[in-house]
Amino acid sequence: MHINEFQELMQKLYYHRDSKRGVEGTYRWLVDEVNELGDALHNNDKEELAKEFADVIAWLASLANITSVNLELAAVNKYNNVCPKCKQSPCECRF
Amino acid sequence: MHINEFQELMQKLYYHRDSKRGVEGTYRWLVDEVNELGDALHNNDKEELAKEFADVIAWLASLANITSVNLELAAVNKYNNVCPKCKQSPCECRF
Repeated sequence: MHINEFQELMQKLYYHRDSKRGVEGTYRWLVDEVNELGDALHNNDKEELAKEFADVIAWLASLANITSVNLELAAVNKYNNVCPKCKQSPCECRF
Repeated sequence: MHINEFQELMQKLYYHRDSKRGVEGTYRWLVDEVNELGDALHNNDKEELAKEFADVIAWLASLANITSVNLELAAVNKYNNVCPKCKQSPCECRF
């Protein structure tokens, strides 16, 4: 599935709720999901871990929807086949 | 671009660094990027905001790479055209 398609799916499923909740509230949900992902990294439940990854990308797409950001375009523009800092593939940054 | 392709691009560019840094360090980077996204929401720079979205999905893909999670499969399995809770599209959850 394209990043765009996933963002559109989140729009279809959740835009009415996301836009009502607003940017601040939706960002807080994203942070909560990132925390849950952090917890899941310490458990040994691979299926649960995958679900937490799904939730983070879902809330990221929701936040992109209500801030009118095209997530795929943003990703492709910044990470255009090379590291945006050193311009190499693989990255050769020295930090 | 498919979610899978983006994850593979991050693997190509960064796996050697991500795997060396490890899960904890890479998760901390993800958290930092989510914080930067939060800051960018308060500014009025649309281009900068898009870059912060790109960084969050990039670090999420990096973390997925070193924990052997297929981000696209995880997303599609959980969000399979309906809300995973109420099974409706659009979501009709009552919370």
